[in-house]
Amino acid sequence: MASSTLTAPVMQKGIHGWNPCARISSNARVNSHRTLNCPLSMSTVRKPHFFRAHPASINPPHVSASQRYSLDTKKFPVSCAGKFQLDDVIESQQFDTDILNGIFEVAFEMEKIEKNSPGSNILKGYLMATLFYEPSTRTRLSFESAMKRLGGEVLTTENAREFSSAAKGETLEDTIRTVEGYSDIIILRHFEGGAAKRAASTATIPVINAGDGPGQHPTQALLDVYTIKREIGRLDGISLGLVGDLANGRTVRSLAYLIAKYKKVKIYFVAPDVVKMKDDIKDYLTSMGVEWEESSDLLEVASKCDVVYQTRIQKERFGERIALYEAARGKYIVDKKVLDVLPKHAVIMHPLPRLDEITVDVDSDPRAAYFRQAKNGLYIRMALLKLLLLGW
Amino acid sequence: MASSTLTAPVMQKGIHGWNPCARISSNARVNSHRTLNCPLSMSTVRKPHFFRAHPASINPPHVSASQRYSLDTKKFPVSCAGKFQLDDVIESQQFDTDILNGIFEVAFEMEKIEKNSPGSNILKGYLMATLFYEPSTRTRLSFESAMKRLGGEVLTTENAREFSSAAKGETLEDTIRTVEGYSDIIILRHFEGGAAKRAASTATIPVINAGDGPGQHPTQALLDVYTIKREIGRLDGISLGLVGDLANGRTVRSLAYLIAKYKKVKIYFVAPDVVKMKDDIKDYLTSMGVEWEESSDLLEVASKCDVVYQTRIQKERFGERIALYEAARGKYIVDKKVLDVLPKHAVIMHPLPRLDEITVDVDSDPRAAYFRQAKNGLYIRMALLKLLLLGW
Amino acid sequence: MASSTLTAPVMQKGIHGWNPCARISSNARVNSHRTLNCPLSMSTVRKPHFFRAHPASINPPHVSASQRYSLDTKKFPVSCAGKFQLDDVIESQQFDTDILNGIFEVAFEMEKIEKNSPGSNILKGYLMATLFYEPSTRTRLSFESAMKRLGGEVLTTENAREFSSAAKGETLEDTIRTVEGYSDIIILRHFEGGAAKRAASTATIPVINAGDGPGQHPTQALLDVYTIKREIGRLDGISLGLVGDLANGRTVRSLAYLIAKYKKVKIYFVAPDVVKMKDDIKDYLTSMGVEWEESSDLLEVASKCDVVYQTRIQKERFGERIALYEAARGKYIVDKKVLDVLPKHAVIMHPLPRLDEITVDVDSDPRAAYFRQAKNGLYIRMALLKLLLLGW
Repeated sequence: MASSTLTAPVMQKGIHGWNPCARISSNARVNSHRTLNCPLSMSTVRKPHFFRAHPASINPPHVSASQRYSLDTKKFPVSCAGKFQLDDVIESQQFDTDILNGIFEVAFEMEKIEKNSPGSNILKGYLMATLFYEPSTRTRLSFESAMKRLGGEVLTTENAREFSSAAKGETLEDTIRTVEGYSDIIILRHFEGGAAKRAASTATIPVINAGDGPGQHPTQALLDVYTIKREIGRLDGISLGLVGDLANGRTVRSLAYLIAKYKKVKIYFVAPDVVKMKDDIKDYLTSMGVEWEESSDLLEVASKCDVVYQTRIQKERFGERIALYEAARGKYIVDKKVLDVLPKHAVIMHPLPRLDEITVDVDSDPRAAYFRQAKNGLYIRMALLKLLLLGW
Repeated sequence: MASSTLTAPVMQKGIHGWNPCARISSNARVNSHRTLNCPLSMSTVRKPHFFRAHPASINPPHVSASQRYSLDTKKFPVSCAGKFQLDDVIESQQFDTDILNGIFEVAFEMEKIEKNSPGSNILKGYLMATLFYEPSTRTRLSFESAMKRLGGEVLTTENAREFSSAAKGETLEDTIRTVEGYSDIIILRHFEGGAAKRAASTATIPVINAGDGPGQHPTQALLDVYTIKREIGRLDGISLGLVGDLANGRTVRSLAYLIAKYKKVKIYFVAPDVVKMKDDIKDYLTSMGVEWEESSDLLEVASKCDVVYQTRIQKERFGERIALYEAARGKYIVDKKVLDVLPKHAVIMHPLPRLDEITVDVDSDPRAAYFRQAKNGLYIRMALLKLLLLGW
Repeated sequence: MASSTLTAPVMQKGIHGWNPCARISSNARVNSHRTLNCPLSMSTVRKPHFFRAHPASINPPHVSASQRYSLDTKKFPVSCAGKFQLDDVIESQQFDTDILNGIFEVAFEMEKIEKNSPGSNILKGYLMATLFYEPSTRTRLSFESAMKRLGGEVLTTENAREFSSAAKGETLEDTIRTVEGYSDIIILRHFEGGAAKRAASTATIPVINAGDGPGQHPTQALLDVYTIKREIGRLDGISLGLVGDLANGRTVRSLAYLIAKYKKVKIYFVAPDVVKMKDDIKDYLTSMGVEWEESSDLLEVASKCDVVYQTRIQKERFGERIALYEAARGKYIVDKKVLDVLPKHAVIMHPLPRLDEITVDVDSDPRAAYFRQAKNGLYIRMALLKLLLLGW
């Protein structure tokens, strides 16, 4: 159930003692990550958290600043001792605004790498395994493009379900222990909620959750927030209209969760009655001091928003209730009339794929941001691959 | 329907104002193609044709000759200003003899690259997406080998049908807009005729048609003509025997169409009655001044031909008419008896896969050219990738 | 049938006149292997054996020792003239102890390459085609990782069955002739016993058998023997307990076959009655002077062994005899009690995947070697790719 995807805010406390000055030099990577990869140490190395404390020994003092990957270091003073590193990307609850901002900065660097050169080589020699237990071509291609744009290599499987469990009954944990022997990072797509967390606690190499059933899809959540930042220029003070299937939509729920971490956010919910936003998110927003309001007037909401985030009504959620689906589907459409009232600086977003909930004639408007949003998924994934394999 | 794949010759007029001195320096590639890739310019950049006029600005004057990809430039004098570039490969009608000869020259260069070095790096940093809505392993592996032989990288999907349309209803256009954000060139295989043209008019990066349903498969047509040139040494004055399923065979129809552009060509059609060559191609050949003749005597035809092009009788076209299929299938077999009358300089071609329409004992004869023909597909595709990504 | 996988020892005689001083310099590789790849020579080059005599001409005298791939040459004196090379890997019967030891040395070098650098480049420019007629994700990923760790590139197909035979009826031989035009080495997984041998006799490039139906899976056999060597430090004088499905298990049969080539080996068979080791292997072991014994007491066997090799009872072999399967499945379990009696220096092995025939609480014991064993598959495959493409 989607309602189980975001646990109460209290539970997230304490899991990220992230320190922005943490870093691991690219020079040290071979030692740290290859050692973890060693089968002999398998049973002794276990990661308690998504963020792991690194012993000082893996950050050798003889590494000069110039040997590090060139990032703007102004925000990350090198004077403080490194303590934490991003080890896995499992769920939205991992991220506070400091980490988000750090990731977004790296993602912005990645835009430059992709535009100004015929590919980077910073991940040359690294192997990523895309272990997909259910196909998701869009997500898979985005990750694989990210890895290859950075000079890395990819092992792909789209039928991991056949690989292990069904016919032969291997556990996910055993599969992970095998695949980690062949690769340096695992991108996992699974049909079961919680699968990514299980994989991460087994693996001695980084794991990124590329969607686990009704559970989490954290890289989608990150790219959504990054798109708002890139398109509008800020995250504090944003007015956001969430439209469509708010009950089942994993993306809008995660977006609401993350955007609540910023200041003075206002959220409008515009949804057909059968797929209204659930109370857990509303309660959470209230507890975070986020102003929210439900509305049935898309035009009025659009006239007041920085971002209108449209989503697809998911037919598969309605079963045989076809009439109900058809009614819900046609109710809130983003079309030229919405563009007419939308502020000039505002944008339309959509996680894609879209059916007709945004009409095609909207595409040519500069405020139609959804294909740029998809592209931002590439930069976010490039950033995460870089951060998990080379460190900050 | 196959009869719709080649429109009347009049309709092709004027679509290719190709100029052999057109070129784009490899130095300029980042600027031109990466700019097109930028999501922000998406709605303003639209390609009217398969050949696009390039503004002078993308061919900067400071690029010296030595910085360009080393091609024999005698046939392409640099003194004239570049005007046109090959933007997409969609259908056979794009190609006149000048373009064909230009492509063939590059393909011949590619044979040397493949043979003399452990791979080239001219496409290093480029990403090709093979977006296959129906599987075609032979074609896919050929394209992917071509890209990798040139140092490029590949994103693969063989189940693009699942990706978008079926379950979730995304349009091909939306899929293209997403995938173009992850890659530099798209190889499209689709089950619908015209899909490649739609994709090309949407995409801001090059698209190559790898077969769209009953429509076109232009790279197969190019490799067939290239094979004749490589095996016989010329295209003018060729005698060509087309054998087998001439009614449904996409390849023989395209080959007849392209070879008609050369001088003093003679074509013999040898087909069972139920799958005879259709009138549209015959009329077209007549209008182009190509001599053609139907025959039921394969041995006599073989004795007069430079090329015997055998094709498979496609069972799937006969439905429940099994007896008719069996009769057609056994009628014209290329075997030792055909070799006995075939001129010494002549060759046997076949688009593959073959069943028993060429007997296995023919394979060891030096005139059996069909596996070399398959290999030529690699060189043609290397050439097209080079031309579409780096220019002439 | 599995009983047909290992022919009588007499039949293997004479197929491997392998000479440990054979080598081909890496400098010569382009000439030899690219020439073979040339379509024009296709009909004249045929390989009679898995080990091919090389004419002196491809081992040019002007290649200095320093130009060769750095292997410890003490065991392979360069003073004798090179005569044989490993051309294909098709079946366990190819390997005598000299070849095994040679491969293991290269595999050990590969461990260092993988651990100490961000990837090697010795296979840069080489293309491997994984032609899988049935999916086997574990084996495929292992081969692809091996190729990429050495800087090579990969063409993948997991649905080769659709590629050729089923719908269109192409022979395996024709498919091989096409694919060899696109790649430098073929990894074949097939559903028919003997398919790899057919492919190798057709191909002008090396072929590795990645499992052909009930037939052979020689790289699994090699990695098993290599694991014993790496874990225990020797192969002579080994005591080996083979547990589980010994009637159908391809791996235990191959392992018994190969280990018999070493001195003073002792084998214990521990199997439920319905899946006991067959007589052909017992007779073979006796003929090779290997001591063997059947036991129903796993604990007693474990207390005397250097290696306990557990296998999965394969449900699919029992058809509707579910009760029989359940009884067999639960009979011999490797658990904490086995660990209690197992010597300190001994190890537990398993070809994976496992169900519950090894309990999960065994995993954390340092003597649980099965994930290291899977990892050794990577090194063995790296070694074979290196040997087949570059020579010794």
